Amino acid sequence: MEIKPGKLLENINTPEDLKKLDRSQLTQLSDELRNYIIDSVSVYGGHFASSLGVVELTVALHYVFNTPDDQLVWDVGHQAYGHKILTGRREQFYTNRVYKGISGFPKRSESEYDAFGVGHSSTSISAALGMAVASAIKDETDRQHIAVIGDGAMTGGLAFEAMNHAGVADSNLLIILNDNNMSIDPNVGALKDYLTDITTSQTYNKLKDEAWKILGKLNKLGGPNAQELASKFENSVKSFLLRQSNLFESLNLRYFGPVDGHDVDHLVSILNDMKNIKGPKLLHCITTKGKGFEPAEKEQTKWHATGSFDKVTGAIHKKVSTEPKPPKYQDVFGHTLVELAKSNEKIVGVTPAMPSGSSMNIMMEAMPERAFDVGIAEQHAVTFSAGLATQGLIPFCNIYSTFMQRAFDQVIHDVAIQNLPVNFCLDRAGFAGADGPTHHGAYDLAYMRCIPNMIIAAPLNEAELRDMMFTAQLSREKSAFTIRYPRGEGVMPDWRTPMKAMEIGKGELLVEGKDIAVLTIGHVGNFAVEASKELAEAGISAAVFNMRFVKPLDEKLLHTVFANFKNIITIEDGTIVGGFGSAVVEFMAEHSYKAQVKRLGIPDLVIEHGTQHELQHQCGFDQQGIVDTAKKMLFIGEKETV
Amino acid sequence: MEIKPGKLLENINTPEDLKKLDRSQLTQLSDELRNYIIDSVSVYGGHFASSLGVVELTVALHYVFNTPDDQLVWDVGHQAYGHKILTGRREQFYTNRVYKGISGFPKRSESEYDAFGVGHSSTSISAALGMAVASAIKDETDRQHIAVIGDGAMTGGLAFEAMNHAGVADSNLLIILNDNNMSIDPNVGALKDYLTDITTSQTYNKLKDEAWKILGKLNKLGGPNAQELASKFENSVKSFLLRQSNLFESLNLRYFGPVDGHDVDHLVSILNDMKNIKGPKLLHCITTKGKGFEPAEKEQTKWHATGSFDKVTGAIHKKVSTEPKPPKYQDVFGHTLVELAKSNEKIVGVTPAMPSGSSMNIMMEAMPERAFDVGIAEQHAVTFSAGLATQGLIPFCNIYSTFMQRAFDQVIHDVAIQNLPVNFCLDRAGFAGADGPTHHGAYDLAYMRCIPNMIIAAPLNEAELRDMMFTAQLSREKSAFTIRYPRGEGVMPDWRTPMKAMEIGKGELLVEGKDIAVLTIGHVGNFAVEASKELAEAGISAAVFNMRFVKPLDEKLLHTVFANFKNIITIEDGTIVGGFGSAVVEFMAEHSYKAQVKRLGIPDLVIEHGTQHELQHQCGFDQQGIVDTAKKMLFIGEKETV
Repeated sequence: MEIKPGKLLENINTPEDLKKLDRSQLTQLSDELRNYIIDSVSVYGGHFASSLGVVELTVALHYVFNTPDDQLVWDVGHQAYGHKILTGRREQFYTNRVYKGISGFPKRSESEYDAFGVGHSSTSISAALGMAVASAIKDETDRQHIAVIGDGAMTGGLAFEAMNHAGVADSNLLIILNDNNMSIDPNVGALKDYLTDITTSQTYNKLKDEAWKILGKLNKLGGPNAQELASKFENSVKSFLLRQSNLFESLNLRYFGPVDGHDVDHLVSILNDMKNIKGPKLLHCITTKGKGFEPAEKEQTKWHATGSFDKVTGAIHKKVSTEPKPPKYQDVFGHTLVELAKSNEKIVGVTPAMPSGSSMNIMMEAMPERAFDVGIAEQHAVTFSAGLATQGLIPFCNIYSTFMQRAFDQVIHDVAIQNLPVNFCLDRAGFAGADGPTHHGAYDLAYMRCIPNMIIAAPLNEAELRDMMFTAQLSREKSAFTIRYPRGEGVMPDWRTPMKAMEIGKGELLVEGKDIAVLTIGHVGNFAVEASKELAEAGISAAVFNMRFVKPLDEKLLHTVFANFKNIITIEDGTIVGGFGSAVVEFMAEHSYKAQVKRLGIPDLVIEHGTQHELQHQCGFDQQGIVDTAKKMLFIGEKETV
Repeated sequence: MEIKPGKLLENINTPEDLKKLDRSQLTQLSDELRNYIIDSVSVYGGHFASSLGVVELTVALHYVFNTPDDQLVWDVGHQAYGHKILTGRREQFYTNRVYKGISGFPKRSESEYDAFGVGHSSTSISAALGMAVASAIKDETDRQHIAVIGDGAMTGGLAFEAMNHAGVADSNLLIILNDNNMSIDPNVGALKDYLTDITTSQTYNKLKDEAWKILGKLNKLGGPNAQELASKFENSVKSFLLRQSNLFESLNLRYFGPVDGHDVDHLVSILNDMKNIKGPKLLHCITTKGKGFEPAEKEQTKWHATGSFDKVTGAIHKKVSTEPKPPKYQDVFGHTLVELAKSNEKIVGVTPAMPSGSSMNIMMEAMPERAFDVGIAEQHAVTFSAGLATQGLIPFCNIYSTFMQRAFDQVIHDVAIQNLPVNFCLDRAGFAGADGPTHHGAYDLAYMRCIPNMIIAAPLNEAELRDMMFTAQLSREKSAFTIRYPRGEGVMPDWRTPMKAMEIGKGELLVEGKDIAVLTIGHVGNFAVEASKELAEAGISAAVFNMRFVKPLDEKLLHTVFANFKNIITIEDGTIVGGFGSAVVEFMAEHSYKAQVKRLGIPDLVIEHGTQHELQHQCGFDQQGIVDTAKKMLFIGEKETV
């Protein structure tokens, strides 16, 4: 289905075209851009509410600044749909987030307008500062460097580190704080309260007016005089309040705002004014997530990302299934945690800004005093959990696999070295799907496996997830316990199974066989079971072992496997470099077994976006990949073609 | 040599003993504690200036608070010598940082007074908040939770994340900001400027006086009235300035100070007052690093940590060597970087607060506009470097191996996924030595190896480090380049070798042999060469291959090795789980070679402190360990004993 752009938008293929518009036309263009996003996402799905919130900002930025020579960095980047549409990708936009289509995030390899690839939060100030310092070194003093960052992303420690540096680096950096009081879920933390305070404070509003008045004059003057005046203006303001009255000014960033982020004409004025002020500065914009689409304004978390929907009624299209569907792993986690917490009062929950994404919100509603959303702050989530564990509590710290990369040191330094019994649940392990390479949970088995005092498990299905969680909450003196599971649905419609303790480091034989052994970890074991049936039809008897634990390995079971099989396949939905398969070949080397071992998993490449199955197929560890590999190892494939 | 404590100190074996002293005796006790530290470190070496700076604070904290029931968390922890001496470890203190002796950092397994193990920076607020929240859940409302954190550590993003959470968590948390304007090197960044501002501001000093006056009254009143008054006091102060005039107040932390951190009597008053104020609060103490030992006060970086010295003259004892000594790897890095930067104007240097430790200070002095100390901010250092690289500059980002753990996500997300040519130099790879487990660079080969678009190299010696750096600065379109090398000295007194480009992924045969192949990576190759000589004497012909690159592996060379040897040893000064040896067994499995491979390196355990050689010996990969392993693999050892 073709999405028809409005009359102005249809002629805009680059920001150059945009600049040809009269300033008075920008409101209409903004409306058209917003409608285009609504139309597109209603048909194709995608991130939604964030992009609607920055429509006017996007138009104003490309109108005022000289992109791509000026460098525009979008933090996180799921708000950049308007940016993509204005920078030559409108006609491909229907391929957004689709296999081999354009990325849902800015991406350097996709467009010169995407100054920095993003996906994870809080990177934009560091990156833009790097660019600004580079321009200073290269004496390109007119280039502008702009980081657009949400108030949620501002709670990430990386953003603070960058501001601390930006405040002393004399570089041409503009930080735009896109303050919508939301990340995916409503924002939390002291910074949120603070931003609300300054937004509503009378003093600030007075100052704001004064600032724009003076800036207005400056703009008319232009040139070096403007800068002198700016400096005078600043000193006078500083001397009465601004200097020490603002968190950002404390860090030596000139603070401007707050301003209405939906008044495109005003934004153009302000941005033009700010272009002439050198040095690091911050513009505080107030926006509404989901702006212009009423259902999204009202329920911002629900509309953060969506499938296709009816743009008139706001009804989200659901696939109607006649059969009972298996639940999402995340929901099994959420409900099971509450179930366990009801009988074990030591259990506490921790999530870094992902209550709905991880389903920790179920515990937050049921037991608000025992479940904590700590903001976009993975490092803190882990060390905070370590602190809780020192006092005998049993934390379940739920972090997406890809985001746990950000707390790697805290897992080593604050949990593992002290041998504290913290439980980590890593959601979205394996391929994230449409979110693509920045979000794939590809590395967790490898980076967790090299840490001492660490148990690593992955459930085959919902029942195992529940048993692993049950086991993790039993009292133990030592060892962190990581349970990783994929995005999306499991395989058991009847998932509320009675829970039982698992023996740590114990795998199981799932399917008997004699020609080849398939060793699997986690959900991908289901692919192996199906593959074994297909192989059986081709006359190959494949045994399937569900190892359950990457660490400790079930060495007893492995001895049996290596004693009985000369051909072994390992399967994991993670990198094959240093992951589960490597653990198996390490075992083989350690015990001087000699077998042919083929490791299936994510190869040592950046894998782009697509559906989980498309990517698993591409990497050759879906059912077909397993079948093909087994045949090849046993030369059946070759024989048949002879 | 026995260190004699002063008359008061000699009777203090626990904080209970300390509490028996009259408050008027605390100044004398502080002096005695300071002298004890000076005496001890002058004989045994160790961290120094930081502990001298917090002597009075240490005495006051243990005098006022009910440790260990009240939880005291020292950030970083190299300032905790006084704490250790007052909490039952005075008589073992001479074993500080010695193999099998006490740790140079607080450590939970060592003492119940060490509430949280530390070593890396900026963890204390998160950990103490976890403890405080746990106490709230357990209804232990009287327990106090104290984080002592330096102004340097405060620049770490983790500290900010924790403050953002602390400001809304209604928990009993006291943050003591130990502001000495130094980390190891002088502090940098906007926060530093800000703290200097508020320290010298008249308004603040006036407020401070008022605050203590009112708090003094409160203290006399005690009980619930005190709290009511405190609240009134707070409102009145807030209403005129404090509320929005302070970075910490912006984050909803009640701010008190600044106060003189060397006035122990005043500190006791203040801490007693603050005990009665519930909720999150921050006390800003001004201290002098090295306080009470003049040379250390004057040259704080030099005296951050020291070997033994003459406590009268301040002369640091140096080992006098008659032979020319090899340089430290870090100095080879520092001088070589300047040498390269002189002819390649695109080179820039980045260090997160380790200019002297990494020898980046050499470039910072030679080319201040092209070398950046970004503060204790590893995450920012990496993403900032990525930003620099997008603009065609060639960053050398130098981070200790152990601290790079903190930027793991930034390496993946901001560098590798975008395939940016950033150069990482990881100092202190392998065993850090006396600093112990928190500082060992044990995991880098494993955690870097699982990342795509990453070259990983380790030099055998100084000449190779120079060649690797030369190679890394040559123009290339893609791939991050990691060079990791150990703490301390290399092997080449004449190290200023002419530099040449290396072929990436190319190893070399170092010693010819036929009985067994020893594959090595980096500096440990020198142990293998020595071992091969010893083995030759025992009639074993051991070939030694210097692989140079963990990634990409020299597959051509490996094919030769596996074609010619049935017995292979791999050696690395990193974890054997997922590291270099695993790469070799992955290769073996991939190509269906069948050899006996023994991987030597750091086992999957937390290895404690000691000299590098003691630890290498313990783990069996020093010269002797290699010899023993080779003999065992070839059954020579057994034969001889028969």
